[in-house]
Amino acid sequence: MHSRRDFMMWTVAAGTPLAIGASLKPDLRQEPSFFETVRSRRSVRRYQPTPVPDEHLREILDAARLAPTSGNQQPWKFLVVRDSGLIDRMKEACIEKSLEARRARGLTVSDEMAESVRESFQGYFSAPVYVVVLTDSQSRYPTYNHWDGPLAAGYLMLAARALGYGTVFITDSIPTDVTKEVLNIPDRYTRVCITPIGVPETWPDSPDKKELDEFIVYDRF
Amino acid sequence: MHSRRDFMMWTVAAGTPLAIGASLKPDLRQEPSFFETVRSRRSVRRYQPTPVPDEHLREILDAARLAPTSGNQQPWKFLVVRDSGLIDRMKEACIEKSLEARRARGLTVSDEMAESVRESFQGYFSAPVYVVVLTDSQSRYPTYNHWDGPLAAGYLMLAARALGYGTVFITDSIPTDVTKEVLNIPDRYTRVCITPIGVPETWPDSPDKKELDEFIVYDRF
Repeated sequence: MHSRRDFMMWTVAAGTPLAIGASLKPDLRQEPSFFETVRSRRSVRRYQPTPVPDEHLREILDAARLAPTSGNQQPWKFLVVRDSGLIDRMKEACIEKSLEARRARGLTVSDEMAESVRESFQGYFSAPVYVVVLTDSQSRYPTYNHWDGPLAAGYLMLAARALGYGTVFITDSIPTDVTKEVLNIPDRYTRVCITPIGVPETWPDSPDKKELDEFIVYDRF
Repeated sequence: MHSRRDFMMWTVAAGTPLAIGASLKPDLRQEPSFFETVRSRRSVRRYQPTPVPDEHLREILDAARLAPTSGNQQPWKFLVVRDSGLIDRMKEACIEKSLEARRARGLTVSDEMAESVRESFQGYFSAPVYVVVLTDSQSRYPTYNHWDGPLAAGYLMLAARALGYGTVFITDSIPTDVTKEVLNIPDRYTRVCITPIGVPETWPDSPDKKELDEFIVYDRF
């Protein structure tokens, strides 16, 4: 019997996700259960620089690919960014945009404020790899992409957790136009989110969650 | 080492999902791994009448509740429909709507066509329980609900699979206005989908999927 605590320690203690991920073939004796994976997933905003092996990345994206889609259209692209130059350009663009927004509101940007803004992006950009989840407006049923996109992103984040990695579903913190410009994303693609993938600096506690019964309505309103 | 085939047989052979679900406390020795769950999930369109115990239903919704949300807003309601009278009213409304649409296109609806339309809905309405996944337009960040809603639905469907149940992400086949009218859903809620939950009549084969490499772009377009 493994508690959540055991699981968290097991996957993190060694400082690498390999305790679980070493066997890439699913094996009930080695992999976390579905429910342990769900319960231990966290939104992670600061990472260790440890690289994510290509086999793990592919295993994660292979799970994302198995999310259900409308009429089996599979409208996704997964843009995998490992080039540290590009990651740095995204970070600098985010910082610049954030400072510009302050100036546009008539604020004077002191060196201290600039440093504080810079620091606020360090965590988000500390991972070794980023995945931009995209849907294609030229898919078979594009008006259904708004469902299919988040479904794959959810699978991706859980699969990463199952292999010992953190993720976080980022929208505003790394603006769409930053990823579009730096990564040259064509207009036909709609961004669902961008997520880092990496070994967390630490696994955060869960934020407070509502009780299950607050969500459930039986039979009819 | 358990193959997917073992897993599928294991969860279905007894005609009930209890081989896995009997222990509701996650246990690495008894539950399917995350990746086995993902790989064996299917969109199921015909069910056995076997009831879904309340503990399983709650375990499934408890996993859905753990999906990430924007600013931790948790904007969901899960409308759980087990009342067979309501399920039957939804079915009849779907059939009537489908026949009306045919009449509106100037088609004569023969008894044979009416019977064929009726038959086409039998599978969708053969499950013992339905969950309507809703987001609340009065949540803290309603413009982010379009991401948060499908994330929870994806978790829900995987959790059901982990306990041995089938689901299917239904949009058009059971129209929004049918669920709204029959289940008295207030205007403030937006439907993400409705899904049956039940023991599949059979586990279908996977539809053809694109290869992983068709989805991946490295670093930049």
